[in-house]
Amino acid sequence: MIFIVTFGDTIYMSYFYNEIKKMKAIIRTAIASDSSAILSLIKELALFEKEPESVKLIESDIKKYGFGTTPLFRCLVAELQHKVIGMALFYPRFSTWKGPTFHLEDLIVSEIYKGRGYGTQLYSAFIRDAYDLGVQRIEWNVLDWNIPAIRFYENSGAIVLQDWKTVQMDAQAMKNYLAKNK
Amino acid sequence: MIFIVTFGDTIYMSYFYNEIKKMKAIIRTAIASDSSAILSLIKELALFEKEPESVKLIESDIKKYGFGTTPLFRCLVAELQHKVIGMALFYPRFSTWKGPTFHLEDLIVSEIYKGRGYGTQLYSAFIRDAYDLGVQRIEWNVLDWNIPAIRFYENSGAIVLQDWKTVQMDAQAMKNYLAKNK
Repeated sequence: MIFIVTFGDTIYMSYFYNEIKKMKAIIRTAIASDSSAILSLIKELALFEKEPESVKLIESDIKKYGFGTTPLFRCLVAELQHKVIGMALFYPRFSTWKGPTFHLEDLIVSEIYKGRGYGTQLYSAFIRDAYDLGVQRIEWNVLDWNIPAIRFYENSGAIVLQDWKTVQMDAQAMKNYLAKNK
Repeated sequence: MIFIVTFGDTIYMSYFYNEIKKMKAIIRTAIASDSSAILSLIKELALFEKEPESVKLIESDIKKYGFGTTPLFRCLVAELQHKVIGMALFYPRFSTWKGPTFHLEDLIVSEIYKGRGYGTQLYSAFIRDAYDLGVQRIEWNVLDWNIPAIRFYENSGAIVLQDWKTVQMDAQAMKNYLAKNK
């Protein structure tokens, strides 16, 4: 009896799981109460990028910078059965050649939900937003060892620039520089 | 007689030129009436970067995006004898690891004024601004063949990231993508 029920459950769960796999996520603009879910996704990506200790932000920072009076970013979230399972976080930049552009800072789908098209849904929604607002270019960064991501971007019509490098200086280095160059 | 005057002029001009070479530029925040000078510098840099035809902006765009009600960038200019001879153009970005950052889009000194420290003056003023405003990181891009620039940045304490690539999609590619992914 127990066996039969378990067997039935397994069939049911398998059916249910396949139905979930086929489901499209709901893509919507993030609100302040998504801050905790957004931070969880950011931490998950940092772990994937092998720098889990690099995330210095806490939930109140996400609230403050994303949903205050002058937001520093916009965020779209992918929701599945009332759970945020992915996000696209971006903000305006300015090209002195082209004019206003958007920068996609993070495109994240939680590990167990990968491979079901939610990343593509978020990516498309971001491109739609940018295009509708008339920005002349969108851009983002990718790790050169993340070959699946590079292939995905190139297949979508994006170009990976080969001759540009990113330069960064953190607050401590800024302080050191200023002390030496008064 | 003409020879003597010319000789005297040459000495005078040489003295005068050396004095100019020693002069520090005045660094100030750009205003709307600098738009024409800013655009000239942008075009000069595009020529140096071997893409002179890539500058699509016109003077009114600089005015609109830089000095309108919601500016998309800030700009410091270096002025020498009432002439703008360089600029540092930057805007806020947001790191999901660190929080608010600044992006230095362009650091330009007009060709004939190079090598006299005006670039360093602008660079220092930008770093001072960013540090005083409490941003956690500044960043920018550099062409990998621009070795003097890379050395300058590294000597100043900045780090050139080796494993990140920039990905871009222009408006036409966005349009094509959206047509295929409805």
